[in-house]
Amino acid sequence: MEKGFIQVYTGNGKGKSTAAIGLVIRAAGFGYKSYFLMLMKEFPYNEIKIFELLKNFISFAQVGKDDFVFRKELPSEDERLKIKNALDDFVNKMLSNEFQILVLDEIFVAIYFGLTTTEELLKIINLKPKNVELILTGRYCPKEIYEIADLVTEMNEVKHYYQKGILARRGIES
Amino acid sequence: MEKGFIQVYTGNGKGKSTAAIGLVIRAAGFGYKSYFLMLMKEFPYNEIKIFELLKNFISFAQVGKDDFVFRKELPSEDERLKIKNALDDFVNKMLSNEFQILVLDEIFVAIYFGLTTTEELLKIINLKPKNVELILTGRYCPKEIYEIADLVTEMNEVKHYYQKGILARRGIES
Repeated sequence: MEKGFIQVYTGNGKGKSTAAIGLVIRAAGFGYKSYFLMLMKEFPYNEIKIFELLKNFISFAQVGKDDFVFRKELPSEDERLKIKNALDDFVNKMLSNEFQILVLDEIFVAIYFGLTTTEELLKIINLKPKNVELILTGRYCPKEIYEIADLVTEMNEVKHYYQKGILARRGIES
Repeated sequence: MEKGFIQVYTGNGKGKSTAAIGLVIRAAGFGYKSYFLMLMKEFPYNEIKIFELLKNFISFAQVGKDDFVFRKELPSEDERLKIKNALDDFVNKMLSNEFQILVLDEIFVAIYFGLTTTEELLKIINLKPKNVELILTGRYCPKEIYEIADLVTEMNEVKHYYQKGILARRGIES
């Protein structure tokens, strides 16, 4: 890729992670290779099965739990260390020249809940090679990231069936 | 699927079609079958190559041009007829019991430019079986559709590199 950008998908609406999935799928159709790091998604999401089928084009990792959020606790030192190691590995992948697209899925949520910091993300962004596209997703995008991103899209929930008391449905939301 | 919904992805931001692509990919990982109708996208988009690899789960069709928009003309009768036939076929697919998810990509743009009408879309929506998920994308979602959709997400462009004079990049936007 001649010039890679920093893309942000944020806001309280649906479609942030699915847009990132669609993006790496489209890019795979073009022959680009992607690395997709999912944070705080322990549940085996169904897109992983398709990523595995497309393993020549899409590599991925999942790291971090979100159960401390539901327990209304701070993340443990152990949890924060796991995220730190995964982000170090992400940087190695980004610098490896193997991938044209790198996705940090739910990174803003991980920052919001104290698993990492805006400063750590800024360090990663500063290391981004020019020809690599970096995709960042999650609610609560910090102001500092808004400012340096090339593209920011806010997904805003206008109307949602969760409001009718229906939770995430298998095969659709997870 | 027990209960299928009507999902709308609209707004002037990025990620509407890619969210729909991500959605059918995730659903394919779960074993659901999808039918994806792309309107007004004549260019061979790269996601198609991946859809072809996943043809046991994802069927698709492309119909309609958008060159009349650039010529600032109304669509020809021939163009409108092509869209009508594709939408008739879409309804047959929706009623066939073969697909759990149906995507009408760029349908609102097709309405906006006079290739079809809100009334025609409402007719399609009225025929939707309860256990089918219907995904509608595009800028310019009509008010009537907002009202009956179960989920509406607006993608809003906060910042975009097009503003810096860069056009769609192959492998990323197309």
